[in-house]
Amino acid sequence: MADKRELIVEGKQKNVYATGDPDKVLIHFKDTTTAFGGIKQAVLKDKGIYNNEISSIIFRRLTEAGIPNHFIQKTSDREQLCRRVVLIPLQVIVRNTLAGTTARLLGVEEGTRIPNTVYEFRYRCEDLSNPMINVHHAVALGIVTYEEAETVMQMAGKVNRELKALFLEAGIELIDFKMECGRTSGGQIILCDDISPDNSRLWDVATGEKLDKDRFRHDMSDVCASYREVMTRLQKIGKI
Amino acid sequence: MADKRELIVEGKQKNVYATGDPDKVLIHFKDTTTAFGGIKQAVLKDKGIYNNEISSIIFRRLTEAGIPNHFIQKTSDREQLCRRVVLIPLQVIVRNTLAGTTARLLGVEEGTRIPNTVYEFRYRCEDLSNPMINVHHAVALGIVTYEEAETVMQMAGKVNRELKALFLEAGIELIDFKMECGRTSGGQIILCDDISPDNSRLWDVATGEKLDKDRFRHDMSDVCASYREVMTRLQKIGKI
Repeated sequence: MADKRELIVEGKQKNVYATGDPDKVLIHFKDTTTAFGGIKQAVLKDKGIYNNEISSIIFRRLTEAGIPNHFIQKTSDREQLCRRVVLIPLQVIVRNTLAGTTARLLGVEEGTRIPNTVYEFRYRCEDLSNPMINVHHAVALGIVTYEEAETVMQMAGKVNRELKALFLEAGIELIDFKMECGRTSGGQIILCDDISPDNSRLWDVATGEKLDKDRFRHDMSDVCASYREVMTRLQKIGKI
Repeated sequence: MADKRELIVEGKQKNVYATGDPDKVLIHFKDTTTAFGGIKQAVLKDKGIYNNEISSIIFRRLTEAGIPNHFIQKTSDREQLCRRVVLIPLQVIVRNTLAGTTARLLGVEEGTRIPNTVYEFRYRCEDLSNPMINVHHAVALGIVTYEEAETVMQMAGKVNRELKALFLEAGIELIDFKMECGRTSGGQIILCDDISPDNSRLWDVATGEKLDKDRFRHDMSDVCASYREVMTRLQKIGKI
């Protein structure tokens, strides 16, 4: 088992612990959740267990597809061993259908179909409420070079293609998701963080029902049951 | 002289009139000005005269540089004859130094120097307060194709290089400016609108003094005198 040492980062939904190996960390998935920049908070029973399993299945699939990422292995119900990275403060949001803040920004209806894939950068800075920026802003701020931004964008395209196919096998439409990257001690840019119903929109293909954090945001019932449903469907695929 | 016919567009700072030629319009520069999305309004005596002259000098220079644009000729103190276009609802903002809304968005000081040029798109939609968008949003909305957006970006780069040099000759630093494009009846994308102290930031190289609409926004004195100063300096260059 991994040698769990001191807490490095206490996050809203996850904690990160050092291990005996300076290039590896243990990520612990919590049941706490927040929305609207931390204004709305709750504890969703067993959410951490579901998200750890969902993100583990997803990252195994991305590893098989040759996408460099931080995931090494799931070590317990709530924990996974990952490569240690220095996070790049740039969130990448990939949208296959317009919903949420972007639907409001553009004045279109939730669920508007689009002919292309929309990629967005957000500057990970809580003091500024994680503002939407573009590649030129990111370079001006010294977050990435133009070449690194291109690497991240290419990766986002590949991740999207893999995840759209994976979720479709599970009868789920991938509306959008957020991803983050980091730099390893060797300077390689790899995918990190988690990908789960906490930071994606997942709609049931048959019914259109939301199976993600929007249920929590909009005070809908069965938030935990939806997360568990996503997990169960993804687990079944692995067993086919 | 141009054959001035019916008013086609009544704008905040300019009116557009039809002419006898369906491919040409007369643009009339007014003294009215607004800021903060129309909340602050005023009449600045002779501003229309200064802006018509400034924009005419700028567009003549851009024509010489081979940048396709709508300007044909100045016809009077307040009017210019231009090619008629269908406006693309996409404002392009080019920033050589960070100031204004973008400095606030990124949490940096007004006047922050940057190693690159920042390009921004804004969706020209008053109901949505002209939100900042990116190329993927513009394509999703059907405003432009990716190829057209690339054409506009290439043009913005060329315009910036020309205008930085022109203003530097006048002892003025071009901090940022806004440009708009339109489609001619033949489908060509050309530069249109005006470029003036109303939609750019112009700082005196020697003193750092603002010579643009920020003087109006921030209740500084001598707004009209600053616009006139910009005009006079640009006129002198033409005569060297």
